[in-house]
Amino acid sequence: MNAYCAAVDWGTTSFRLWLLDAAGEILAERRSDEGMLAAGPEGFAAILDAHLSAVGAAADLPVIACGMVGARQGWVEAPYVETPATAASIAASACRVPGLERPVYILPGVAQRNASTPDVMRGEETQILGLPERPGGNGRDLVCMPGTHSKWVALEAGRIAGFATFITGDLFAAVAKHTILRHSVADPAAPFDRAGFADGFRAGLGSPAEATNRMFAIRAGGLLDVGAGGDGGSQLSGLVLGLEFAGARSRFGVTPAVTLVASGQLLDIYTVACELAGIEAVAADADAAVRRGLFAAAREILA
Amino acid sequence: MNAYCAAVDWGTTSFRLWLLDAAGEILAERRSDEGMLAAGPEGFAAILDAHLSAVGAAADLPVIACGMVGARQGWVEAPYVETPATAASIAASACRVPGLERPVYILPGVAQRNASTPDVMRGEETQILGLPERPGGNGRDLVCMPGTHSKWVALEAGRIAGFATFITGDLFAAVAKHTILRHSVADPAAPFDRAGFADGFRAGLGSPAEATNRMFAIRAGGLLDVGAGGDGGSQLSGLVLGLEFAGARSRFGVTPAVTLVASGQLLDIYTVACELAGIEAVAADADAAVRRGLFAAAREILA
Repeated sequence: MNAYCAAVDWGTTSFRLWLLDAAGEILAERRSDEGMLAAGPEGFAAILDAHLSAVGAAADLPVIACGMVGARQGWVEAPYVETPATAASIAASACRVPGLERPVYILPGVAQRNASTPDVMRGEETQILGLPERPGGNGRDLVCMPGTHSKWVALEAGRIAGFATFITGDLFAAVAKHTILRHSVADPAAPFDRAGFADGFRAGLGSPAEATNRMFAIRAGGLLDVGAGGDGGSQLSGLVLGLEFAGARSRFGVTPAVTLVASGQLLDIYTVACELAGIEAVAADADAAVRRGLFAAAREILA
Repeated sequence: MNAYCAAVDWGTTSFRLWLLDAAGEILAERRSDEGMLAAGPEGFAAILDAHLSAVGAAADLPVIACGMVGARQGWVEAPYVETPATAASIAASACRVPGLERPVYILPGVAQRNASTPDVMRGEETQILGLPERPGGNGRDLVCMPGTHSKWVALEAGRIAGFATFITGDLFAAVAKHTILRHSVADPAAPFDRAGFADGFRAGLGSPAEATNRMFAIRAGGLLDVGAGGDGGSQLSGLVLGLEFAGARSRFGVTPAVTLVASGQLLDIYTVACELAGIEAVAADADAAVRRGLFAAAREILA
């Protein structure tokens, strides 16, 4: 078997491994829910070995990993590199796990040590390294990575120039379950209401200052049977996404296009949001991006 | 005893009763935690009778009540009156509780049936009726009523012209306890950090679009040991209040002064917020306001 390295995306609650050849092609693949939380301080090496054995990896095959495995609470802390970050600065700061015969490198996250909006990422920087070149890119691109904590990343000549994390998904869940809006978002399985979503989105994007009033208005509209009507969850979802897009515009300026690193339902909902905001969305697959990013880092580290 | 009426402020979780003479002076007073939730559909009459007996009220003494006792889930629903609302329109829509010998009137709440920001209040309208005249008032006043759901009310020639509810306190609690910020707001008893509060407030007021990014920045600043530092709770509190003040400005314009219906810690924190926003705050006592408002309504209803 002509394996070149194993690429591992090791998050808080998930583990992905790809066995790659020297061209970055996939020879074998593993996935499980043995994330950082499941591993505990003792379990990282055992979990990794089990998956490497299962794909028949040689004892000296190098491993490149990214994600929360490199956090302070992870296996070995790989301290953040600073913005502006490049493929080279990230690869150069990879930490080799001590005490193992096998070379296992953990990639660092990226930190923005800016007094007004300090920010951190861990794992997303590797996806960024693996994004396909944007055809006709003008050297400055914006990437949107939706999630519990959505990240918007400004790329300048391929470097991570700056970024902003929005607690959109986390906020939605907290407001929907733990405020007065729990009475308006009673059914989490309610079908997506596009009109209500659009209404909330336009309010969040157009009048972000009124966001916490608009949240109450979702409840009051239901009580009075006026307003957008329909499912309060779709309105609230639109509102918090509108607020995120308003924030991205405030931070990075108006953008004609964005690379959307997402799949499934999140891709659908952010695609609708981009349409409403007049932004062209180009979807990129997160799994493919992180695999390519890990491979690119492996080439730098193992060269 | 020369009692004229009993005035009752009956909220979700609290009960207040004042026995008043014909000049509105207090003859006796009762308070308990037998709010709407504790009363249940059967218990309202029994609770009221017990307190009236305790102050020696005559069997035919009229009672004027306001608050959640008049909600759909309360004793008798007193349907909302519409904005613009006046003392006369509120008193004219009081509902007499059926089936009692004693005349018991429940005041309605106020609804704003506006498709973009529908809103409701129940209880606050009575406080508004009881606010002292503003010396030198120019006929248009703004009233801020802090709480779990803060209300800003625009008065024009004494009428409730419009209002906006912000879920500030509810949002603070949900974000502090149920998002990633729980790691940054670990100690609810941490002392108030004025610098952190001011930092958050200026961010919320000045850049409301970036609020959900700023929330994450509180967490990231703690991780990186940059930014405002100190207690994350004070920063978050400042941020959500700044967002509220930005929303009030967006809805009602820049105001030089506001009547602040609050006491205790809420009065302190909103007074700081007003200073930071360059707004003169004139404090008014909520208990005195609701008592005076109930008395004013009694004079209209019983005339």
